[in-house]
Amino acid sequence: MTKRITLAAATAGHAEGGSSLNAFDNALLVAGIGNINLIKVSSIVPPDVTIIDLPKIRPGALIPTAYAAITSETPGETVAAAVGYALPDDPAKNGVIMEFHGVATQSEAERAIDAMLEEAFRVRGEAIREKKVFAAEHRVERIGCAVAAITLLAEEDLA
Amino acid sequence: MTKRITLAAATAGHAEGGSSLNAFDNALLVAGIGNINLIKVSSIVPPDVTIIDLPKIRPGALIPTAYAAITSETPGETVAAAVGYALPDDPAKNGVIMEFHGVATQSEAERAIDAMLEEAFRVRGEAIREKKVFAAEHRVERIGCAVAAITLLAEEDLA
Amino acid sequence: MTKRITLAAATAGHAEGGSSLNAFDNALLVAGIGNINLIKVSSIVPPDVTIIDLPKIRPGALIPTAYAAITSETPGETVAAAVGYALPDDPAKNGVIMEFHGVATQSEAERAIDAMLEEAFRVRGEAIREKKVFAAEHRVERIGCAVAAITLLAEEDLA
Repeated sequence: MTKRITLAAATAGHAEGGSSLNAFDNALLVAGIGNINLIKVSSIVPPDVTIIDLPKIRPGALIPTAYAAITSETPGETVAAAVGYALPDDPAKNGVIMEFHGVATQSEAERAIDAMLEEAFRVRGEAIREKKVFAAEHRVERIGCAVAAITLLAEEDLA
Repeated sequence: MTKRITLAAATAGHAEGGSSLNAFDNALLVAGIGNINLIKVSSIVPPDVTIIDLPKIRPGALIPTAYAAITSETPGETVAAAVGYALPDDPAKNGVIMEFHGVATQSEAERAIDAMLEEAFRVRGEAIREKKVFAAEHRVERIGCAVAAITLLAEEDLA
Repeated sequence: MTKRITLAAATAGHAEGGSSLNAFDNALLVAGIGNINLIKVSSIVPPDVTIIDLPKIRPGALIPTAYAAITSETPGETVAAAVGYALPDDPAKNGVIMEFHGVATQSEAERAIDAMLEEAFRVRGEAIREKKVFAAEHRVERIGCAVAAITLLAEEDLA
């Protein structure tokens, strides 16, 4: 048996770093997910998953995560990353996660996610019961990163 | 114990969308894998895996998948994505999956996969018992995507 | 229950190939990880993991792996890929993995990893107990690839 995803938690963060990868690492630390192993998924909320605030996750745990990230080495540039989920009226159906990153403001990123979630539900013929967007914006000093993520969790992943 | 991969199933699809990510989402829906969590793998068919037609997969399931995708926002452009697998004579050995995406036709994509699989087996010193390619081509209207995928499945992933 | 990561093993390799993906495949074969399914992770060594030499891994196994790879089709170009890990004094805390790839020499790649690991521990407020870097450099003839990887393993993954 594999671990069963029963929880999902979203977060976002931004930071500077000495390199692009350190900026990403630092942004993950700010977001509270810097000490786990992110496994990128594309990008569904399973049925019957409870959305919770980001919990303490076991260090090094392998966590399926839908995430968006952008790093920039252009001082003065504003970058943003966002993720959002929408859940259907029918609890037996899955929800959808959308990601965005770009040279953009946080509110532009949020609007992009919103439009993508609306289309995702329109094409599925489902009504949205609940929708939420999480975003971070970063104004680059030297090397910066913005990240936003939705983690998919099993009980055993919690610290 | 982790879930045991015993099945593999291939598919392909293409679609337009209101954004690049929606075009990808729509192409996945056309391909029948739009409501699961794809985990990208690179890219082996385990020994003793049975190739089946794409089954119904549990919504939200975490599915290791070798896939190729391309989105384009250039109206009139033709893009293609393809995957293929080759299985060895010796059933105790693993098979290989190759992926291709590009501004190309479906038959160009298929030929690219074929050549890559041949080389993969030549360097492994194995003979090919079975080989198959799956591809999709899309002529972009506004924003389009072509995707091709081989999912690696356990019994418990089936709906 | 999910498989428990108790081991980690690093490797690196480089090769030519008939296509970019074949060069990558060939470099993975040289590195000893060409017949498994790599699942990219970002990028933590769980606490209480033992670092071992690369073992024989079951063909087709799904292996969470932090890796860096670069392919080049520019004859004469030198490319390099590197990964490194650092482990903390406190064995209850997690280690960190950093990746680098670029048009660079092996020693440039190694220095980049070293600096990134130092920053990762500085920001975490931890002291480094052990640090190691693995890298490969490739001078491109026609189409070449360099890859470096740290695999995260469970006992059941071993052949």
